[in-house]
Amino acid sequence: MPFADRIRHCNSYDPARAMPLWAGEHRIGWLRRDNAEALARHHHVFEIGHHGARLRTTGDADAISHTVDRVVDTLVTARLVPKWRNETFDVAPHWGDPPIFRLDRGAVPFFGVRAYGVHLNGYRRDGDRYSLWIGKRASNKQVSPGKLDNMVAGGIGNGYGAAATLAKEAEEEAGVTAALVARATAAGALTYRMETKLGIRDDVMFVYDLEVPEDFTPSNGDGEIAGFELMPLADVLERIRTSNAFKFNVNLVILDFAVRHGVLRPDDPEYLDVANGLHRAFD
Amino acid sequence: MPFADRIRHCNSYDPARAMPLWAGEHRIGWLRRDNAEALARHHHVFEIGHHGARLRTTGDADAISHTVDRVVDTLVTARLVPKWRNETFDVAPHWGDPPIFRLDRGAVPFFGVRAYGVHLNGYRRDGDRYSLWIGKRASNKQVSPGKLDNMVAGGIGNGYGAAATLAKEAEEEAGVTAALVARATAAGALTYRMETKLGIRDDVMFVYDLEVPEDFTPSNGDGEIAGFELMPLADVLERIRTSNAFKFNVNLVILDFAVRHGVLRPDDPEYLDVANGLHRAFD
Repeated sequence: MPFADRIRHCNSYDPARAMPLWAGEHRIGWLRRDNAEALARHHHVFEIGHHGARLRTTGDADAISHTVDRVVDTLVTARLVPKWRNETFDVAPHWGDPPIFRLDRGAVPFFGVRAYGVHLNGYRRDGDRYSLWIGKRASNKQVSPGKLDNMVAGGIGNGYGAAATLAKEAEEEAGVTAALVARATAAGALTYRMETKLGIRDDVMFVYDLEVPEDFTPSNGDGEIAGFELMPLADVLERIRTSNAFKFNVNLVILDFAVRHGVLRPDDPEYLDVANGLHRAFD
Repeated sequence: MPFADRIRHCNSYDPARAMPLWAGEHRIGWLRRDNAEALARHHHVFEIGHHGARLRTTGDADAISHTVDRVVDTLVTARLVPKWRNETFDVAPHWGDPPIFRLDRGAVPFFGVRAYGVHLNGYRRDGDRYSLWIGKRASNKQVSPGKLDNMVAGGIGNGYGAAATLAKEAEEEAGVTAALVARATAAGALTYRMETKLGIRDDVMFVYDLEVPEDFTPSNGDGEIAGFELMPLADVLERIRTSNAFKFNVNLVILDFAVRHGVLRPDDPEYLDVANGLHRAFD
């Protein structure tokens, strides 16, 4: 399978199947049309038109969050949102802006709200040969159970920034000390927009690299990762090409690592579709 | 000036002012509408419609190149193309494909054909502090005379790949030996589409990083660079923000360097527009 197919898989969003969700002048989500229909009876909270939907309720972030939560209650009851995650994400016009409201993580794809996460490539290097510490997701994870993952990854909850989320997840997921994670390098942002059975995932992944010492072995502390394995990058790339072993978006993070470290190179005919495809324009 | 304005400046392309140029089923360029009008009298070579233009002439790459060159002759006479550059770029459906024809570099923006180049960040590092070797473009350059530039940069001429172009330009422009340039790391591709007075620049920049030794000083051999200076990256970023000292697209290459090396970081509210804006989706 061409690497670009892994990227296409994460960009399955079809604008014809969705409508923008507005809050005032800000587009804050992409509602799949069947999800928009399911919101129509909550006309005191959301105004649903043919070309777009609009948040009607006003007030401060606490008030709007409370009102939207009551709608999410009904969506959970109707099984349109699988469950409360009891972790909220900020819904803001733009990265870094104060939130308009906070939304339970479980409802984020239903509304197609942009979500932000951090992904850490934990690697070792011997000359031009890289190895990556790869985690295997626990079998009881909500998303992609049993799939292979980066050494550390996690969503950015409300009020946390990227660096704070990275430090917290690195400690919980892989036993990375504060001193070690402080040596991680921010290395860019990847973007994709994907339709799932729940709605639209409009995701930004902030990627970090961390060269770990030879005597370091990650160890999971929160039960989210079943185990870790150090794999040569060449083997990882081969598995990305030939299997569905990796979580859908982790394929992208590892392809980006291979691009940034010159393991994939411009004279490869696949290169440009990979290097450019990892970044989706905002709209 | 926000860094993102440097990116916006390079993405001034307005689809309403241009039409696609087709060769068979492949879109090979973006013709500004006034340029399309200027081609109308060459109806044996180009069919100009309201919504698009089409290359009519057929044959192998040599035959088509010869026919298109005769049109370029008239464009040079009419001063719609400033001059023959006597260096040709491949015009292909897709990076790595065999060319449909070869086009003189001087005519590339007139037809809005995608052009590929290499840019090399020549840097030194002391812990977290980076310095970049910056070139000053000669005052007689066709494009951006006197502006600041990467240590090495150049367009990919027909038949050359990215790595071969990098090695050739590194030697000619900065006196980088083959042994040293072999240590450069391919680090990604940046894309932008810009309207200029000549037409549309639809550019792909393959970026490379090269950490150079302390005893290395670049020296120009082809007269294209007037001189080099080693500048702290923090000073370079400040000049990018506050002046027009750098060539328009070199701003993007340096911002990408700062993103990939964690000098710009995700918790900066500007970060995401920079990190994501450096990559324009293909269409």
